[in-house]
Amino acid sequence: MSYNKTASITAETINPKVKIFDYEPCGEIAKYAERLQEEMDNNPGSRPFPEIIYCNLGNPQALGQRPITFFREVLSLCDNPALLHRDEARKLFSPCAIKRARRIIESLPGRDSGPYTNSQGIRSLRRAVADGIAARDGFPSRPEDIFLTDGASSAINLTMQILIRSQEDGILCPLPEYPLYSASIILHGGTMVPYNLSEDGDWGLEIFEVKRCLEEARIAGLTVRAMVIINPGNPTGQVLSLTNQEEIVEFCRKEGLVMLADEVYQDNVYVKDKKFHSFKKVARSLGYNENDISIVSFHSVSMGYYGECGRRGGYMEICGFGDDVIGEICKVASVTLCPNISGQILTSLMMDPPKIGDDCFETFLAEKDDIHSSLVKRAKTLEDAFSSLEGMTCNRIEGAIYVFPRIHLPPAAIKAAKAEGVPPDTFYACRLLDATGIAVVPGSGFHQVSGRNKATGTWHIRCTILPGEDKIKAMIKRLKAFHESFMNEFRDRSRTTSQEPV
Amino acid sequence: MSYNKTASITAETINPKVKIFDYEPCGEIAKYAERLQEEMDNNPGSRPFPEIIYCNLGNPQALGQRPITFFREVLSLCDNPALLHRDEARKLFSPCAIKRARRIIESLPGRDSGPYTNSQGIRSLRRAVADGIAARDGFPSRPEDIFLTDGASSAINLTMQILIRSQEDGILCPLPEYPLYSASIILHGGTMVPYNLSEDGDWGLEIFEVKRCLEEARIAGLTVRAMVIINPGNPTGQVLSLTNQEEIVEFCRKEGLVMLADEVYQDNVYVKDKKFHSFKKVARSLGYNENDISIVSFHSVSMGYYGECGRRGGYMEICGFGDDVIGEICKVASVTLCPNISGQILTSLMMDPPKIGDDCFETFLAEKDDIHSSLVKRAKTLEDAFSSLEGMTCNRIEGAIYVFPRIHLPPAAIKAAKAEGVPPDTFYACRLLDATGIAVVPGSGFHQVSGRNKATGTWHIRCTILPGEDKIKAMIKRLKAFHESFMNEFRDRSRTTSQEPV
Repeated sequence: MSYNKTASITAETINPKVKIFDYEPCGEIAKYAERLQEEMDNNPGSRPFPEIIYCNLGNPQALGQRPITFFREVLSLCDNPALLHRDEARKLFSPCAIKRARRIIESLPGRDSGPYTNSQGIRSLRRAVADGIAARDGFPSRPEDIFLTDGASSAINLTMQILIRSQEDGILCPLPEYPLYSASIILHGGTMVPYNLSEDGDWGLEIFEVKRCLEEARIAGLTVRAMVIINPGNPTGQVLSLTNQEEIVEFCRKEGLVMLADEVYQDNVYVKDKKFHSFKKVARSLGYNENDISIVSFHSVSMGYYGECGRRGGYMEICGFGDDVIGEICKVASVTLCPNISGQILTSLMMDPPKIGDDCFETFLAEKDDIHSSLVKRAKTLEDAFSSLEGMTCNRIEGAIYVFPRIHLPPAAIKAAKAEGVPPDTFYACRLLDATGIAVVPGSGFHQVSGRNKATGTWHIRCTILPGEDKIKAMIKRLKAFHESFMNEFRDRSRTTSQEPV
Repeated sequence: MSYNKTASITAETINPKVKIFDYEPCGEIAKYAERLQEEMDNNPGSRPFPEIIYCNLGNPQALGQRPITFFREVLSLCDNPALLHRDEARKLFSPCAIKRARRIIESLPGRDSGPYTNSQGIRSLRRAVADGIAARDGFPSRPEDIFLTDGASSAINLTMQILIRSQEDGILCPLPEYPLYSASIILHGGTMVPYNLSEDGDWGLEIFEVKRCLEEARIAGLTVRAMVIINPGNPTGQVLSLTNQEEIVEFCRKEGLVMLADEVYQDNVYVKDKKFHSFKKVARSLGYNENDISIVSFHSVSMGYYGECGRRGGYMEICGFGDDVIGEICKVASVTLCPNISGQILTSLMMDPPKIGDDCFETFLAEKDDIHSSLVKRAKTLEDAFSSLEGMTCNRIEGAIYVFPRIHLPPAAIKAAKAEGVPPDTFYACRLLDATGIAVVPGSGFHQVSGRNKATGTWHIRCTILPGEDKIKAMIKRLKAFHESFMNEFRDRSRTTSQEPV
């Protein structure tokens, strides 16, 4: 039996693009949390905390958010359409859900939820999405421009695949960024062109900064094709002002950039003075149509009051691309045949939820409002808690599901981190997890500290606001105790030991 | 309002790799069928046939295959776990399904089917898949080596992304091929190295032919990394003999090729003298372990007696890759977060179906056997029907869900096709659809006629065996009438008009 080394695939022999990118949501902290979880499962009580709180992922239902009953009833009926003909089902499902499921099933190929669908998604469900967009924006939307997808990340990947031709193609992305963008751009062989959000300006987007980055990129020989805007922001939690959005639209139009509008947190806005406006609506309100500017809007069933991450449902609305391009996108989509049917159905429900007059409307509204008002409270509680800590500053959480405080770390902590070979915020996050079971993502995971970043040397953590209110209370207690002891440990020793005033 | 042309994305300015590949399952015939469907919807009775029969896609449930009750009951309960606590649910769901759903829900993060899961898939479900593989093969399988995926096509794409570094990397693929392979290889920037299956040898795989192609590719400067084998075959319907499989394993081991084993039709074998053997089992039986040969096996919930295409569930089992590579694959998988949960659950049910002693076993077995025995009949009926037609020859349908007859077209038909600028088999398929409503895929869609192909000039169609038995009867009638009239139309006219004996 001869051993043929070449048959064995090693990290040295795989696609180098795969090796380049890092993806913090499954990076150091996630791995450490996994090891800790295993340790605690095998040896309960081994740690001074009862459980790990996974604040590193925006995973609402894993942290206790309940699903919307109507959504689950419809899914359940669509999975098993035989139920629609059973009297007993009326005791278990609302008439509203039965009616909706029947309507969906009747519009499916083969009148069941089993077959492949159109690669772009089922037309009737795309129609529901388009109608929902039109109702939201007050401007028309067409099912032909909607692609149902396995979550927003598939849609973003597909768009990058279409836009990126070579390393000379650049995509403008915000820093701090949701790392899906850099990963996807690298995997598709393009170049990320980062622009910095302004922490001092409530994480707003300053056009002169974007312009600076665009010009630098052009001088470096890049063709910048598109600009990613995440609104409400991940990880920053800002909601762009309408004026800011208008500036961005004007900028992209003038510079010939496709707008890639990540709008997955559109139902997560927590402050009275801000409102979600889709970029398409802003562009149309300014009088621009699809000949003036190309916009792709991404949305998903994972966030908002729905929080159905595991379902992998989402859509993109493509405006201002040629029909020939839409045809090519269909072709690429058809290589993986079609998006999953549960995700498609859920996406239609998200954009066409129960309305006033529907028998389940009251229940639906109550569930939705409960989730939303609790998120408003939790956002404020965590913002206040982090702001109250020594050396932490924290912008207002206007939207999305994260608090992203800045940590002003003592030099001794930065030195200790260096000694361990990790970024200082990773060092802090590891210590926090180790001491309290609270898992957060270090800001460096969002590439806050790229070479191009004027904010190099600022450190942050991203912590989701999703744990239940009671859990947040307990969490804050642990967090405060940890932070105090951490700061004490690394407080400038030269000064303390030499008895100088602090 | 100034118009900025660069903002508009056209087919000329997108990723050229996207434009190169063609994907027949959504090509000419599918588009034509769509137009025809629209015409018939708007103007019923406008055509001499009652409906379009979509034999161009292997889409079981769209063509009438019923889903397995147990599978759907479990999915339905997992979608709406509140049902598990309701007495009334016992009237609608089998105890078996309730028990299984409860077990699955208890193993999910957050004890609901809503959250993101591990990017590789839920561990307990991967365990179920691994146990199913071990029971099937009689060799161990580990959950760490299983990736749950959104169908087999996602898994294949992910594997190509890992393996392909540049255009100098080649992947051996069978011709005729399932066009996902060429599409995926092109999109990931690699080179497809086709090898011909032998129509005269019952579509078997001849090692000397593969060796010839491998050597040619190496001479041309390619590094050939892997060999795709589809067994049972799509579109060819062959089931490889054990001896042939052993030769292939020896060949890949010796040549240092990763085996990419597309085994999605493993539950579609129709002849008594052939049996499905996984390539991993064949390799292990020969005494080779993961140090000797790397094998990736793909499977999905779309085919077999399950036929749940729209659910997008599947798995790949990766053997003989380093742990570091598994880590990199996890990272790439995590960019799209996780496979959809319904697909994950279904994949576990497929590999861990009801067993003897379970209260729903009899029903399950009856449903499964009904589907299987009907497919056996349908395969034989269609094989006989096509074989009986003038100028058609047809290998035995041993497995998968297609008949792939060769058409010996009259020169006049080939000339007419040329005049229309389409391959002769596309010409035939269009005529067939137009006259009968039967949609099939021309063999050229499977790249039968590539320049490297010694079988250039042979023409085929792929027709699925999935329509119900009654529908197949009606279909054959229409097919025979059409074929006769087509052959009459194009029969050698020089001879007929000059009254020479035919």
